[in-house]
Amino acid sequence: MSDISNLPNSKKIVLKSRPDGDPKVGDFDVIEETAKAPDDGEVLIEVQALGVGAWIRTTLNETAFHGSTPIGGTLPSMGIGKVLISKSDKLKEGDIVSGPLSAQSFATMSGTFFTKVVNPEIDPFTQIGVLGVSTGLTAYFGIYEVGQVKAGDIVLVSGAAGGVGMIACQLAKLKGAKVIGIAGGKEKCEILVNEIGVDAAIDYKNQDIDEQIKLYAKDGIDLFFDNVGGEILDIALDNIRDRARVIICGAISQYSHHDDVDGPSLYLRLAEKYAKMEGFTVMHFKDRYEEAYKELLDLYNQEKLKVPFHIEEGIESFPLALQKLFTGGNTGKLMVKI
Amino acid sequence: MSDISNLPNSKKIVLKSRPDGDPKVGDFDVIEETAKAPDDGEVLIEVQALGVGAWIRTTLNETAFHGSTPIGGTLPSMGIGKVLISKSDKLKEGDIVSGPLSAQSFATMSGTFFTKVVNPEIDPFTQIGVLGVSTGLTAYFGIYEVGQVKAGDIVLVSGAAGGVGMIACQLAKLKGAKVIGIAGGKEKCEILVNEIGVDAAIDYKNQDIDEQIKLYAKDGIDLFFDNVGGEILDIALDNIRDRARVIICGAISQYSHHDDVDGPSLYLRLAEKYAKMEGFTVMHFKDRYEEAYKELLDLYNQEKLKVPFHIEEGIESFPLALQKLFTGGNTGKLMVKI
Repeated sequence: MSDISNLPNSKKIVLKSRPDGDPKVGDFDVIEETAKAPDDGEVLIEVQALGVGAWIRTTLNETAFHGSTPIGGTLPSMGIGKVLISKSDKLKEGDIVSGPLSAQSFATMSGTFFTKVVNPEIDPFTQIGVLGVSTGLTAYFGIYEVGQVKAGDIVLVSGAAGGVGMIACQLAKLKGAKVIGIAGGKEKCEILVNEIGVDAAIDYKNQDIDEQIKLYAKDGIDLFFDNVGGEILDIALDNIRDRARVIICGAISQYSHHDDVDGPSLYLRLAEKYAKMEGFTVMHFKDRYEEAYKELLDLYNQEKLKVPFHIEEGIESFPLALQKLFTGGNTGKLMVKI
Repeated sequence: MSDISNLPNSKKIVLKSRPDGDPKVGDFDVIEETAKAPDDGEVLIEVQALGVGAWIRTTLNETAFHGSTPIGGTLPSMGIGKVLISKSDKLKEGDIVSGPLSAQSFATMSGTFFTKVVNPEIDPFTQIGVLGVSTGLTAYFGIYEVGQVKAGDIVLVSGAAGGVGMIACQLAKLKGAKVIGIAGGKEKCEILVNEIGVDAAIDYKNQDIDEQIKLYAKDGIDLFFDNVGGEILDIALDNIRDRARVIICGAISQYSHHDDVDGPSLYLRLAEKYAKMEGFTVMHFKDRYEEAYKELLDLYNQEKLKVPFHIEEGIESFPLALQKLFTGGNTGKLMVKI
């Protein structure tokens, strides 16, 4: 389709009002309008699938390090789509691309924002949930590069049943570490043990986290990969052993009050244990995406990476999906099929 | 003196009640009693000088990682003394020793706790204030080993006019870093600039710390060496640049409420900046004390290390000295001359 006289109708999810606490469906509006015709350098993309990640919440504040979504602005989201019209030298019609499509069914944006998917035969959910920048690549750089995980390490992962967490657990296992995952609810814990292959899962909703960590790691943990923050971070710090590494990947428990974050009150354990806490964002590794994608693809093709997906249907479901993410209503990488 | 029939009277400072907040003179008692005769393996030491460090406060709680001082127990302190009677193979009468003498004028303890001072011609205040485990050695391992300071780094030091801070500033300068020190009051800041040689000093009592950091380090800081914690740690985190190192050496602002520490609410800056926060205690480097002592002694002999001392007289002044440490009443390493 390169007929710009017959542009499709596009639905987009915009920010109605800044959420007070966790995001709720009522904080967003669905707007329908004709997709914009691409200018020179731009492409019109039909969105196939979008990832729903906790980082989106951080953009809903007025100041935010991932950038702030203005009132009335379309919610950001990374996704996969197909180029319908290209006025960019970089992409051609029919290309499958990944990138910051935003929460909408059709996107007209600069072609430079997008990467052509080299394996278009792989479904969009796997592209987002396993090989995506904010899932597989984040886990890859966090566990291997920042965490420097090695055989024999006792690794604790919070948010272990989430998109990044599940891959982090598996990458650590692949290096020979013992992995303990923390997740909310019996079902998620069973998936972690039976499908993801962790050595132990802790159900933070029904178990005493501290007691359980001590049960599985009586001499303490070597590496904590944190996606949650808050109380769980403090409990983990209380269980580190000498020279432990605490990797700050995310802090979903804190994103809804980003201006008043609970700092880890047990941070002095770092001094007691000659330990370190290191943070990162995947963007710090953007020059190495290709290398990580290739390695993850190899692992996926060898069936060494399994990721359960939680898929919601239709762009209109995006606000509810985001709300679910913050109430723990998803198991596995949460995505929206458009 | 090896006549145990004529043992000296010893005064010791004991904990009367656990301080509520900062330590006050009234939390301690002075007790006088005849020094205990040494048993086999023990030595009787005449204490010459004692260091007064913030870590002492952490032992005044019921649970504490440096060990807890019981009610009625003698306060811990590192110091220098002279062996009067030795029943230890390790030490002989007349030896000058350093070690955990505790806040008392005479100490009878196992000889294994003490190290013979290899340069007894150097006065006890320099031994404690420059070459001591909880001063020079702490700064040495913190700045060189944990901090890996290098030429061109912009280094921020809190508690810069304290015992560890002053040496940390100088060691960083010696490696070619630009050093900004934070201290309380104009006098301390002048000493930092004029005697210690920092590039800039920030008076936290009279200046806006954040504004001043931005003035001297507009692109952010590479290394923060923290002895204070609390608000200053958060302000520093707000000013780190990519790949910064935050070294947790101490947290004097938090020791008086050690069970309810203010964690750094801006710890997510570590993720935004791919930065790390690493803690240590000098005890983690105990196998390397000799190497550090030698290097510090060389620097001292070359007059490359200057440390102003704040000396209180008499063991009875120990409680007041400790109180002063927490109200910022000292400039330079606080010690008690016995």
